[in-house]
Amino acid sequence: MILCVSASPALDVTYRVERLTVGATNRIRETARRAGGKATNVARLLVLLGQDARLLTTAGGETGAELAAGLSRLGVGHDLVPTTSATRRTFALVDETTDTVTLLNEPALVDDWPRFVARAAELIPSAEVVVLSGSLPADAPVDGLARLTSLARGHGRPVVLDASGPALLAALAARPTVVKPNADELRDCADESDPVLAARAVADRFGVLVVASLGADGLVAVAGDTAWRARPRRRLTGNPTGAGDAVVAALARGLRAGTALGPLLADCVALAAAAVLSPTAGEFEAADYQRESVDVISETLGRAGR
Amino acid sequence: MILCVSASPALDVTYRVERLTVGATNRIRETARRAGGKATNVARLLVLLGQDARLLTTAGGETGAELAAGLSRLGVGHDLVPTTSATRRTFALVDETTDTVTLLNEPALVDDWPRFVARAAELIPSAEVVVLSGSLPADAPVDGLARLTSLARGHGRPVVLDASGPALLAALAARPTVVKPNADELRDCADESDPVLAARAVADRFGVLVVASLGADGLVAVAGDTAWRARPRRRLTGNPTGAGDAVVAALARGLRAGTALGPLLADCVALAAAAVLSPTAGEFEAADYQRESVDVISETLGRAGR
Repeated sequence: MILCVSASPALDVTYRVERLTVGATNRIRETARRAGGKATNVARLLVLLGQDARLLTTAGGETGAELAAGLSRLGVGHDLVPTTSATRRTFALVDETTDTVTLLNEPALVDDWPRFVARAAELIPSAEVVVLSGSLPADAPVDGLARLTSLARGHGRPVVLDASGPALLAALAARPTVVKPNADELRDCADESDPVLAARAVADRFGVLVVASLGADGLVAVAGDTAWRARPRRRLTGNPTGAGDAVVAALARGLRAGTALGPLLADCVALAAAAVLSPTAGEFEAADYQRESVDVISETLGRAGR
Repeated sequence: MILCVSASPALDVTYRVERLTVGATNRIRETARRAGGKATNVARLLVLLGQDARLLTTAGGETGAELAAGLSRLGVGHDLVPTTSATRRTFALVDETTDTVTLLNEPALVDDWPRFVARAAELIPSAEVVVLSGSLPADAPVDGLARLTSLARGHGRPVVLDASGPALLAALAARPTVVKPNADELRDCADESDPVLAARAVADRFGVLVVASLGADGLVAVAGDTAWRARPRRRLTGNPTGAGDAVVAALARGLRAGTALGPLLADCVALAAAAVLSPTAGEFEAADYQRESVDVISETLGRAGR
C-alpha cells in the first residue's frame, strides 16, 4: 500500500468569470467542487494507475464532510483525522476570455498536530511507500514533515517528499528517499538560481534523489554526482495544476516496484504530460499516458552541469 | 416600518492577500464574514439612523444560517424565506500592497419565487415605505421586481428601486416612486452616455424621480423637467462599496418623513459620504455623517442639462 499523507487537504472550488477585472465587481459562476489538495491528487492518480493507495488527511466542518464524500466518489480510500476548524477551500478563478487561471488558497489548519502524527505512526508500518505531499498547516510545527519523514524512514519505508519553504528544508535534513521540488522550491533550499546547480546542491547536501519539475522544461534529476534531464518530445499546453502531483505519483509507484532510474524518469514525464492534457488535476486519460510514454527525451547531463 | 426586500442576500467574505497575482497561486487569509447584500446594508443603515426597518430576504444552507445569525448581530429584524439552495457568498479580495479591492459575486438563487412574492404580499400592508434593492436571482422571472413594485404601489406604498439590467427596466414600467441607478445602470435603461441626459430620459419615460449616484461626482436627480446635482464639498477617498446603499437608505427615510427634495438630496450625499469614510459597507460614523451633512454643494441644472 502507498500511504499519501497530508494535513492540508482542501475542497477545490472552480469559479468561472467572463473576464476577471481586478478592482471591479465580477460575477462568478461555480462550476465544480472537488476533493483537492496535493496528496488527494497523488492518491487519485495512483488509484487510476491501479495502485493500492490510501490517503491520510484531516477533515472538519461542512467542507470536511464534502471532502469525505468527494474522496469516496473518486475511489480514494482514506483515514480522516477530525479537526474543529473547517477544511479549507481553494478557489480556481477561470477567466473565460484569456483562459487564465488564478488560484486563491485559504490556509490549512490541523488543530492537533500530535494526534495527526499519532495516526500516521499507526498507518506507516503497513505502508510500502510513504508520500508526504502538500503544505504544512499554519498551526503545525515547522519540523512537522521532518518528524513524519523520520517516522517512515525509521520503519525502513521509502519517502517521497513534496513540500515547500522552511518545512521542506527541515524535512530534507531527515533524509527522505526522493524530493520533488519545483523551480521555486529548489530556490527555497539552495542559494542557486540555475535549477540544475540547485538540484545538485540539494542532492549533495542531503544525500537524496532530487527530481525537480520545471514546467515546460520537463524534469531534472540528480543522484550522487550525476544529473539527468527528461522532457516530452513536443511542447504541451494545457492545465499545469497537478503535473507535479503526477511526478510524485509516478515516483511513488516506481519506488514500490523498484523501477530503475531511466524508466522511472520517463514514466514521471509521461504521467505529468498526460496530467497537463487533462482539464482536471489528479486525472489523466490512459491514451494520453500511453502515447506520451513513448515520446520522452532523456539525456545525461553528467558532471557538465556542475 | 420601512420594508427592505431582496431575494439576493449574500454572506460577504473578506479575503486579504499580500499581492494579488492573476494567473498565479495566491495565499489568502480570511479576515471577516458578514451578512451582506444591498438590502441588508440598507436595512442596517436605517437601523443605525434609528428607523424601524425590516428585511425580507431568503436563506438556505450553512451560509443561510450564518446570514441569519449575522443579521441578528447587526440588529436587523428579518423575515427569511427558506431556500434549498445555499445562500450565496460574495468575496472581497483585498490586495494589501495596492489596497485594491476585487469583488467576486456568486449568483443568487431563490428556488421558489412565488413563495417569496407571497411573503412580500403579507408584509407590504404593514410597511410605510418599500425598498427593492439588489439583483434579481438568476432563477426568478425577469418581471420579478416589476411584480413587487406593482404590489407595493397597489397598496399605495412609496417604492425605492435599486436594481440593474432587464429587471430594472421591467420594474421601471411598474412606476416605482424613486429609482436609484448608478452610471452603469443608467446606461441599462437609456441610450445616453451623458448621465444627466440619461437620467432625464428615464424620468421622462417612466414618470419617476431619478436619483443617480455617480461615485466621486456625487448625485444627479431629475424630477419632471428639472435636474439637480449634489456632491460633497471635498473629494472623498475610501470604501465606495455601500455608498449607493446609503443613498437608498436616505431616500427611504426621506420618503417616510415627507422630506422636501433639497434636504433629501443633501441627506443622500451626506450619508453616502459617511459610508465611503467607513471601511465596512452598511456602516457609518455619526460624527462623519453630521460633518458631511453641512458640507454638501447642490445646484439646479434646470433645463440647461437637457
